[in-house]
Amino acid sequence: MVKPNAFYAQSGGVTAVINASACGVIETARKNKNRIGKVFAGRFGILGALKEELIDTSKESRQAIASLRSTPSGAFGSCRYKLRSIEENAREYHRLIEVFRAHDIRYFFYNGGGDSQDTAHKISQIGAALDYPITCIGIPKTVDNDLPFTDTSPGFGSVAKYVAISTREAALDVASMCESSTKVFILEVMGRHAGWIAAAGALAQEKRGDPPHIVLVPEVPFSKAAFLGKVRKTVKSTGYCVIVVSEGARYSDGRFVADSGSKDAFGHTQLGGVAPTIAAMIKDKLGYKYHWAVADYLQRSARHVASATDVRQAYAVGAAAVEFALAGKNSVMPTIVRLSDQPYRWKIGEAKLAKVANVERKMPRNFITKDGFGITARAKRYLAPLIEGEDYPAYKNGLPVYVKLRNQLVRPKLAPFKVD
Amino acid sequence: MVKPNAFYAQSGGVTAVINASACGVIETARKNKNRIGKVFAGRFGILGALKEELIDTSKESRQAIASLRSTPSGAFGSCRYKLRSIEENAREYHRLIEVFRAHDIRYFFYNGGGDSQDTAHKISQIGAALDYPITCIGIPKTVDNDLPFTDTSPGFGSVAKYVAISTREAALDVASMCESSTKVFILEVMGRHAGWIAAAGALAQEKRGDPPHIVLVPEVPFSKAAFLGKVRKTVKSTGYCVIVVSEGARYSDGRFVADSGSKDAFGHTQLGGVAPTIAAMIKDKLGYKYHWAVADYLQRSARHVASATDVRQAYAVGAAAVEFALAGKNSVMPTIVRLSDQPYRWKIGEAKLAKVANVERKMPRNFITKDGFGITARAKRYLAPLIEGEDYPAYKNGLPVYVKLRNQLVRPKLAPFKVD
Repeated sequence: MVKPNAFYAQSGGVTAVINASACGVIETARKNKNRIGKVFAGRFGILGALKEELIDTSKESRQAIASLRSTPSGAFGSCRYKLRSIEENAREYHRLIEVFRAHDIRYFFYNGGGDSQDTAHKISQIGAALDYPITCIGIPKTVDNDLPFTDTSPGFGSVAKYVAISTREAALDVASMCESSTKVFILEVMGRHAGWIAAAGALAQEKRGDPPHIVLVPEVPFSKAAFLGKVRKTVKSTGYCVIVVSEGARYSDGRFVADSGSKDAFGHTQLGGVAPTIAAMIKDKLGYKYHWAVADYLQRSARHVASATDVRQAYAVGAAAVEFALAGKNSVMPTIVRLSDQPYRWKIGEAKLAKVANVERKMPRNFITKDGFGITARAKRYLAPLIEGEDYPAYKNGLPVYVKLRNQLVRPKLAPFKVD
Repeated sequence: MVKPNAFYAQSGGVTAVINASACGVIETARKNKNRIGKVFAGRFGILGALKEELIDTSKESRQAIASLRSTPSGAFGSCRYKLRSIEENAREYHRLIEVFRAHDIRYFFYNGGGDSQDTAHKISQIGAALDYPITCIGIPKTVDNDLPFTDTSPGFGSVAKYVAISTREAALDVASMCESSTKVFILEVMGRHAGWIAAAGALAQEKRGDPPHIVLVPEVPFSKAAFLGKVRKTVKSTGYCVIVVSEGARYSDGRFVADSGSKDAFGHTQLGGVAPTIAAMIKDKLGYKYHWAVADYLQRSARHVASATDVRQAYAVGAAAVEFALAGKNSVMPTIVRLSDQPYRWKIGEAKLAKVANVERKMPRNFITKDGFGITARAKRYLAPLIEGEDYPAYKNGLPVYVKLRNQLVRPKLAPFKVD
């Protein structure tokens, strides 16, 4: 009997642990060889399915697949490509089903954020409509931690740990220098719509008054006057001020703080970067010497300092996706369910894709202090377990060993397809 | 018999391992209690001596001092304060000798870069002239790796490791995303005058063609046309392009690339940052989607991923400084002498402060590839051993444990002194 194959794709911005989910999917499928044939992975995510660029993961050694657990970013490639509605884009949905049919793919595992869960849901619907039933399971992933129904999203815990550690370290630096030099340090982190990542910077604090002294999140409208007042007060009382700011910090009218009229050498609106923007405000109004850092991709690829909790959860949701599929579930996503804060205990739960899709989880107001510049004890109780544990990669010649897969493509069976 | 005391100060920009040198000084002094009384540390470096703010390190537990080995930045505080020439500033040199005399300080250990070695040398001269002989030993430290006569400067190896790891990780990220999103990633690193740190980014390469594809250093004049040509060619052939750039990259006329006419929202010349500046060039001329990161303090405080080699050397030069002093040496600095590349073997040597002072070591031309965009095999042979080995700090609650000293000040004996 020929066993049906599976398709796995990585979607959207990658993380330090998305490959750990891939590892969970592939290892679990291999354990169930009697029921799942091959696992094909999309080259550059869903684009690989549309273009019939399917990576045959059966060509990878057991050791290579195991190494995915400690390799950051997307080993098969990811993409930023959102399928529109079925009405608008029936052609692409039909193409997906055609490719799946040609390669006898009956399981679809889609590893991504809210948009991807939405896509997985639609594919399950269209499959049924086209008389090609396909089991669609979403696998949660996003550094932004904005997926609903899950305690956290794999990827977030490791960014949170990176930001907390970097904040603690850089704060020691400015504390050393503040007497005669830098008085303000600003770390810009990701988070276009939600402040989860910036909030994690506050885990660097051990006691009241410890840095970071200010955390700026998109959930709280930015007030320049209140902000500068807080900076001045902090420098006066402490000698220095450490700030962690979300890239998405914005004014009450919705304008990004980063988009505050700066022009680059070519006359383009700003170079990007809320950190240099607020640094300039501080220089202009308070005159303090500052330094700023923009962590950008460094934060989400920092597998060298990943959270062990996050790695375990990333693997677990990948493994659970396959188990769900084999148990006959469809159009669902494994979730993380918190059982207790301390010790942190969790189990795998599930959410319906129809409900997950396009719901964005922001930080609750009671996670943010009254003045809007910090996070509450409740927020710390939530965040703290997510960064627990270290899970170091192997090193060679002073550098982490990250696996590079063979990524051998399956011979196409269909005519080429042009992606719009 | 009352034993003479020692004074130790941290100077200039701090590093991930300068406290390991402090640990070497204090632990070695404690082992020689029969000859050295107390070790006083300057609060905020040499300013602490001028202001008679002396930290009594004998109040710190053995465990606290041991923990300095794994704590980044300057535990006693550092400063950017350069003593001018003796002629210009006799007042301050006299004050230093007065403070040393008041506290029976006969050993002066100064942990810093070229300027600090110069200061240590001058203090030794002025002490002799004022009939207060004081043994002055410099301890090398600088992330810039620009001190002469030493194979490397403690602090550099850990930044190099951080930059190499971050480059490898971020490169995997952009490689995952490049099909439909980011095609160029730029990492800005320290190095105002020399490109050592940016060069270390190239250690991320395992084989020819691996990222980073372009390394920009101050030693090679920046040519916009050649640079953009290289970016375009790399994206065409590889699909993406990773760039590591020194903050000090400059044009042939000496202008910093970062200082290329950008205006911030307040009309000030640029916000700082060569990364956003070259990102804007790429966007403007080639249209590629880009991301950029500025590592800033994160790179030099990243004790969580310090080089074990660097930590050992930092400790060793601290310990050697005390041993030199006890052996009757004066006005010298312990150095690292390389005995072989692979395996890397080294020993402690010494250099005369008079010769070290104010000599800046740039990268030799034969460390840089002919096209100016990469480093040679010779450079890698030099750099590779410096990042070898991991030396992880202890963790608690998912975060590294960094010691906070009591830093108890000695009661002043002199009238207050105003630092100019």
